[in-house]
Amino acid sequence: MDPVMMRGFMTLTRIDEALSLFFSKVDIARRPGERIPIAQALDRVLAEDVIAAVDVPDFDRAAVDGYAVKAEDTYGASSANPLVLDVVGTVEIGTPSKAILGRQQAMWIATGAAIPDGADAVVMVEYSEKISEERVEIHSSLTPWENVSRRGEDVQKGEKILLKGASLQPQDLGILAALGYNEVEIVEKPHIAVLSTGNELVAAGDTVEKGRVIDSNRPILTAMVESLGGEAIDLGIARDDFEEIRSRIISGLERSDIVLVSGGTSVGKGDLAPEIIGGIGKPGIIVHGLSMRPGRPTALAAADGKPIVLLPGFPVAAMISFDAVVKPIILRMLGASVDQFWGRVVRARMLRRVPSSIGNRTFARVIVTRVGGGFVAEPLRTSGSGVISSMIRANGLIVIPENKEGFEEGEEVEVTLLRPI
Amino acid sequence: MDPVMMRGFMTLTRIDEALSLFFSKVDIARRPGERIPIAQALDRVLAEDVIAAVDVPDFDRAAVDGYAVKAEDTYGASSANPLVLDVVGTVEIGTPSKAILGRQQAMWIATGAAIPDGADAVVMVEYSEKISEERVEIHSSLTPWENVSRRGEDVQKGEKILLKGASLQPQDLGILAALGYNEVEIVEKPHIAVLSTGNELVAAGDTVEKGRVIDSNRPILTAMVESLGGEAIDLGIARDDFEEIRSRIISGLERSDIVLVSGGTSVGKGDLAPEIIGGIGKPGIIVHGLSMRPGRPTALAAADGKPIVLLPGFPVAAMISFDAVVKPIILRMLGASVDQFWGRVVRARMLRRVPSSIGNRTFARVIVTRVGGGFVAEPLRTSGSGVISSMIRANGLIVIPENKEGFEEGEEVEVTLLRPI
Repeated sequence: MDPVMMRGFMTLTRIDEALSLFFSKVDIARRPGERIPIAQALDRVLAEDVIAAVDVPDFDRAAVDGYAVKAEDTYGASSANPLVLDVVGTVEIGTPSKAILGRQQAMWIATGAAIPDGADAVVMVEYSEKISEERVEIHSSLTPWENVSRRGEDVQKGEKILLKGASLQPQDLGILAALGYNEVEIVEKPHIAVLSTGNELVAAGDTVEKGRVIDSNRPILTAMVESLGGEAIDLGIARDDFEEIRSRIISGLERSDIVLVSGGTSVGKGDLAPEIIGGIGKPGIIVHGLSMRPGRPTALAAADGKPIVLLPGFPVAAMISFDAVVKPIILRMLGASVDQFWGRVVRARMLRRVPSSIGNRTFARVIVTRVGGGFVAEPLRTSGSGVISSMIRANGLIVIPENKEGFEEGEEVEVTLLRPI
Repeated sequence: MDPVMMRGFMTLTRIDEALSLFFSKVDIARRPGERIPIAQALDRVLAEDVIAAVDVPDFDRAAVDGYAVKAEDTYGASSANPLVLDVVGTVEIGTPSKAILGRQQAMWIATGAAIPDGADAVVMVEYSEKISEERVEIHSSLTPWENVSRRGEDVQKGEKILLKGASLQPQDLGILAALGYNEVEIVEKPHIAVLSTGNELVAAGDTVEKGRVIDSNRPILTAMVESLGGEAIDLGIARDDFEEIRSRIISGLERSDIVLVSGGTSVGKGDLAPEIIGGIGKPGIIVHGLSMRPGRPTALAAADGKPIVLLPGFPVAAMISFDAVVKPIILRMLGASVDQFWGRVVRARMLRRVPSSIGNRTFARVIVTRVGGGFVAEPLRTSGSGVISSMIRANGLIVIPENKEGFEEGEEVEVTLLRPI
C-alpha cells in the first residue's frame, strides 16, 4: 500500500475536477510559433491556419496525352465521321506554348502540360489518327474542358486547407510544398523538466549497492515527453533533502515550461515536495490526491504561473498519472486538442472480470490478442504499480470510469495499445 | 489516365506476388546494430533480445511501512492477543541494515527498504502499536514473506524481457534502465534516397513559371521514410534526361540502402528509368506494373543487391505505392514485422458503396466520423491521384482486396487513419 494513502488524503479529487481546478487557477498559454523548413516539420503542430495563396494547380493542364483543341471544333466528330484539324505545334510538360490556338487547329499535348491559350479541351490520343505531320483526324466529340484538369482543381486560392493545432503528416508537407511554402509556422516545443527524488535511487549505469534502486522514472517520463512532442530537460536525481529538491525544482522552473517531480514515497518524505512548492511561488499545491488507481498521490501545483506536477514514485503509477494529467497540459501548450482520436485503440472483449470501486478511475493492464476479426483482452495479474515489467508484458491499458464497478467478462471495452499487437 | 497504363503493361502483377518475386531475387539483410544511449532510443528498433542479467529488484524489499520481523514470531498475534517484540533498529530506504534480526526482534522499515537479514515479513504499521522506544505490540499474524516484494518479482535474472525487432516504447526504456543498461543495441536506420524526375518540376520556394509544377513528392516521401524510422537522403529533382537521371540514381545507390525514383509520367519518358536501371546493375527491373489503383506504374528493381523502386509521379499514387511496396522493404531492413498491428485503424460502416474491379487492389480515401460508440466512413468523391488535397480532406484510407468488387453501403470495413479524427 502506498504510504501516502496510508497517511490518508482528507479528500480525493476526480481527475476531471482536478484538471478543471488546475486550469481555472493556472493560465496555460500556447507556446509561441516558430518558422522552420517543411523538411523538419513532420509531427510538429501547426501554429496558424494555412490559407492557400495560390491555386493548385495554377494553370489548366492536360489530364491525358492527345491533342489540345477547341471543343466546338469537334462537335459531331466520331469514328464513323472523323473531322480533320491542322496540327500547329506541340506542348511538352513544363514548357507552355506561346502560340494561341486558332479555329480548326490542334496541338499535340502531354499529360500535365499547360493547355495553350485558345484551347479548351484535349482529345485523347486513342480518339485521334495522325494522317500527316500537319493533319490529324479527330474521332470523338468533346464538351468544353473535357480531359482538362482545371486551375484550382486541387486547392483553390483562399481556401483554408490546414487548421492550426494539426500535427503535420507527410501529405500535409506535400500540400504545403505545392502551395509554395518552404517554411512553415509551427508551435515551439514545450520544455518539460523531469526530476526524480529518493535516497534509494541511482542512475542507470552507476554502481548499484544493496538496497539501492535504479531510477527508471526519468527514462520513462522523458520518453513520454518526447512522444508527445515536447522537449525533455533532465534534472537528475535529488536526495530526500529539502534544499536539494528545492534548488533542483527552481532550476527546472528557470529552464522549462513544466516541472515534473516523481518519488518521495516513504513516510514523512512525501510531504517534502508540497511544502517546498508552497514556498517557491503562488499558488503552490492546487490539488493533491486523485481518485485514480494507480496514481493516487499525484499533485497538481504551480509556482508563479508555471505548472509543477508531482508524480508517484512507482513507475507504472508515474506513467499513468503522466497520461492522465500531464498530457492535457502539454497538449494545451501545443494548442492541440486532447480529444483528438489518433488510433492506437482497439475494441476488445474482456476475457475476465476486472473490478474497480465506484468513484475511482482504475487503469488496468491487459494483454490484447486478435481472435478472428476482433480482439480479446485478458487482464494481467499484476502485483502493483512498482512492477514496470507489467507495462511490458501487457500490450494495452483499459480505463474503468468512476461510475463503474468494473468491467464484466465478455464486456466490450476500448483498449489503448502500449505496443503493437 | 496514366500514359503508362495507356501504353499498356503486358501483364499486371498483384502486390503480394510482386513483393514475393522481389524478395526472392533480392536478399534484404537487416541493417547492422549500433549501440546508443537509452535516452536516445525511443521508437528505435531493438537489434537483439534483452535477457535480464540481474533480478529486478535485486533484493527483498518492504512493500509497506511497518516492522520487519520473523513471521514465526507473530503466529497467533491479533488485536485481542497482541505479541510484544523488541525494536532493535530502523531500516531506511536506500541504506540497508548491517544487523541481523534475531528471535523476538523487530526493526522499523520504510516501504522499498531492504528487508534485513533474519527477517522474512513486514507487519503493517496499522497492525502495530509502539509502546516504547524499544518495544512494539504486533496485532496480526503473518505468513512468511507477507508484505515483502521478493527479489526478482518484477523481472527474474535470465528472463527474456524484450524481443529484437520491437520498437522501443517509454516503458521499455524504463525496464532497460532498471536492468542497469545505459546503452542499448538498436538497428541502424536504413538510408533511403529520394529522387523526383520531371521537366515540369521546381522545388518548393523556387519561382514557379507558368506550366511548371512544385515537386510535392520529395517532402511527402522523405517524411514517410522518417515516420517509418528511416533516414531520408534528398537527391533533388532530375530533368527527364537519361544521363541526369542515371547519375543521380548512381549517386543515390552509393549513399543509401534503397533508391526511390518518382515521376516520369509523360509518354516515352516513362521508359527512361527502367532502361537506365537495367544498365546500372543486375537484375534491373524485377516487376513493372502492379494491379493496384492508384499506383499501377510502380516498379520494383535492384542494382547489385540494392533495391530501386519506381513510384508514380502523382503524389497520391506515390504515397499509396510507398505504403504498399517500400514499407515492407524498410521494415525488413529494420528487422521489424510488417504484420505488427499498431492501431491507427478503426472499424467503420460505409455510408456509400465504393466500387473496385476484381483482380485489382483499390485504395480509396474516406472521411471517418464518430457516430455514437462507432465510426462511419464516407468515400471521398476525388478526381484522381494527382489531387494531393484529397489526402488532407480525407482522414482515412480503405483497402479493397483483389477478390472483391467493392465495399457495399453499410458494410463494416477497416480504415487506416491518415490523421486524428
